[in-house]
Amino acid sequence: MCNFLTANKDQLVNIKLNLKQEYKNIKNLNLNLDMSRGKPSSEQLDLSMSMLDTISSGSDCFSAGNIDCRNYGASEGINEIKELMSQIMEANKDNIIIGGNSSLSLMFDTVSYFMTHGILGCLPWTGQNDIKFLCPSPGYDRHFSITQHFGIKMIPIKMNSDGPDMNEIQNLVENDDTVKGIWCVPKYSNPQGITYSNSVVTKFAKLRPAAKDFRIFWDNAYAVHDLTNSEEKLLSIFEECDKYNSSDLPIMFCSTSKITFAGSGVSAIACAGENLKNLKKRFSFKTIGYDKINQLRHFKFLKNINTLKYHMKKHAEILNPKFNLVINKFKEHFLNNPIISWTEPKGGYFISVETLNGCAKETVKYCKGAGLKLTDAGATYPYGIDPGDSNIRIAPSYPNFEELDKAMDVFCLCAKLAAIEKLIMFQSS
Amino acid sequence: MCNFLTANKDQLVNIKLNLKQEYKNIKNLNLNLDMSRGKPSSEQLDLSMSMLDTISSGSDCFSAGNIDCRNYGASEGINEIKELMSQIMEANKDNIIIGGNSSLSLMFDTVSYFMTHGILGCLPWTGQNDIKFLCPSPGYDRHFSITQHFGIKMIPIKMNSDGPDMNEIQNLVENDDTVKGIWCVPKYSNPQGITYSNSVVTKFAKLRPAAKDFRIFWDNAYAVHDLTNSEEKLLSIFEECDKYNSSDLPIMFCSTSKITFAGSGVSAIACAGENLKNLKKRFSFKTIGYDKINQLRHFKFLKNINTLKYHMKKHAEILNPKFNLVINKFKEHFLNNPIISWTEPKGGYFISVETLNGCAKETVKYCKGAGLKLTDAGATYPYGIDPGDSNIRIAPSYPNFEELDKAMDVFCLCAKLAAIEKLIMFQSS
Repeated sequence: MCNFLTANKDQLVNIKLNLKQEYKNIKNLNLNLDMSRGKPSSEQLDLSMSMLDTISSGSDCFSAGNIDCRNYGASEGINEIKELMSQIMEANKDNIIIGGNSSLSLMFDTVSYFMTHGILGCLPWTGQNDIKFLCPSPGYDRHFSITQHFGIKMIPIKMNSDGPDMNEIQNLVENDDTVKGIWCVPKYSNPQGITYSNSVVTKFAKLRPAAKDFRIFWDNAYAVHDLTNSEEKLLSIFEECDKYNSSDLPIMFCSTSKITFAGSGVSAIACAGENLKNLKKRFSFKTIGYDKINQLRHFKFLKNINTLKYHMKKHAEILNPKFNLVINKFKEHFLNNPIISWTEPKGGYFISVETLNGCAKETVKYCKGAGLKLTDAGATYPYGIDPGDSNIRIAPSYPNFEELDKAMDVFCLCAKLAAIEKLIMFQSS
Repeated sequence: MCNFLTANKDQLVNIKLNLKQEYKNIKNLNLNLDMSRGKPSSEQLDLSMSMLDTISSGSDCFSAGNIDCRNYGASEGINEIKELMSQIMEANKDNIIIGGNSSLSLMFDTVSYFMTHGILGCLPWTGQNDIKFLCPSPGYDRHFSITQHFGIKMIPIKMNSDGPDMNEIQNLVENDDTVKGIWCVPKYSNPQGITYSNSVVTKFAKLRPAAKDFRIFWDNAYAVHDLTNSEEKLLSIFEECDKYNSSDLPIMFCSTSKITFAGSGVSAIACAGENLKNLKKRFSFKTIGYDKINQLRHFKFLKNINTLKYHMKKHAEILNPKFNLVINKFKEHFLNNPIISWTEPKGGYFISVETLNGCAKETVKYCKGAGLKLTDAGATYPYGIDPGDSNIRIAPSYPNFEELDKAMDVFCLCAKLAAIEKLIMFQSS
């Protein structure tokens, strides 16, 4: 198939007719495919089944210090899981608080805490007018939903190939004291799969915020989620902040949702100084402690960072071929017809696609019409508004290989349809 | 031993000498006993061990509707556990949202939600001045900690033998629009073990609050926690509210913490109308869903309300002799020397003791000195301030029978010491 960008109108109209016929044929297949969320596949979930057998008698239920994990107590989490999380998060064990099955809940509650209580003696955020969060975009829709829920104004920040635009961030953070936070997925970012460069991490640590209560929400969701043998290294934000006297800035979040079970993992916060002191106090009011049996179960199954990384290799063996399939399809269809571009992540759960401007919504709509559910176009931007209407998040993990193959055929066809209609309209005008 | 209240000073001084000697002897035993919290004993926790074996292969992980409980999804909880919770809570299944391992967290987040968002179009509570909660007292210290954390002013409400003083409550709720909520443990209350009478529940349903955003926090923590075969029946607040058009008032909380594992149970909210609609929306921002494997595990183990009640009988068989031991010790020591009074609950986890005015702190201090840890005196009142310094919460569940026997000897001795010193001082002044 020719390059749409250099074809003339007659050629495009002809191609469109063929594409439409192809689309009609696919619709008749009545497909039902879902690539909307970054869900692990059954095959991946099966990797952790033996975790459920690690605790089955009373004597299995005791953690270090003879703590009965079935009972109340140890509200910040058991020692073993703190140790393991400290290795995943590359943070001091004493700086860690263990949560429930969802790191998103921890982020939600941390924002909620600053809303009602503030930090460092600053007014609670509810008492300050027009506060803002910076949102490197495309980014994670559920981050944006949290800030939107609390009525915090969101400012999109451009993402470069090595992380968010630090000039823009520095300018805003250091000059505007209504800027209170930033959402970051620093390793294998959602949706691009970008790992922030050393220079970007260092610039975060060197920020001198205008607002004393500015915080970096560092969602290290894919800390150990490599797809290949060549791990991308993320500089430790804590070590960098220690160097530049800014250890009060970052609050790191992490979970085992995509290590063991997406619905039944263990989450954690790592932070320092006043953040740690205040969040520990917060936890003491909020709960008598999270599920310690599940913490112990995770420790008994994952053991230490080396065995955990071995376990992650098994995930990669399932995921990597799926990512390759998507990227090969893109190459096959679009290398000589560059109406979309895409990222080629070395880890994480997503591939980010850029269509021609104004083609993302239409592509997703066409896919839906053909039985392929994608993340809504726009979802990767604050308020669901993608100014270029060009970003689509591809989540290859959940479908099996055959479904994914079919889904990508649908996607490529729909991307072409949306592009060709835009181009014909453009040439007509 | 004689009745301290009718003894003269010389007699009291003599008795005190003996008691002091006895206390010295006990101190030398270097006891280490803990009755500070309502924790189940190991023996009780053992009752649920087989729950941990209910899920061990991939095919065990599916709930109704073919939902893979290991993965994301079903954010309000799986159908089976909603059904079971609806039976425990006597609420419509569709009115239930399932939480994590802690109902306290659900209460915390509900208050937090009203703080930042309000309800029914009312201003968020952070935007309203001097808001208040009513606190039937003695009551549950962790309820009071939540409202204190959010800076909500707490007003103690007198507890009668059939529940809180409804005249006082009606007067405050119907005339003061800064009164936004009330904490209730309506069945086998913490710490008295009182079940609210039908008349009290009906009066709650008939309340016509001055504040449109007044809510009843109905912590049904001990819904199925009978100690004897004669269950005390609590009228359904939802049915009563339906009768009186006030179904927006109550929000009920519940958990399996004292049915299965205190640290690894399942919690739930039941509510109606706008509360339900808004809390469901809240949940959609807060989490991708709580631990569904643990929900399924609970369903597979507890099955239905009948098998659950049979399971609760086994708890009662362990707990009831402990409650009887405490009450028999009280009768033995204080029936003819009424320097303390006590409740005799038919369910729940606590016994409430009233000392002479000004003797609770001293009793607890003496106990601590002898190696017996109790809940802090005052903890059962808002801000930790018991105006009479007379209430002590007794938690008989955690120690084994022998330890409890020893602990009660210590307690009775210390209660006498504190009382006799107060009486001598009184006679001297």
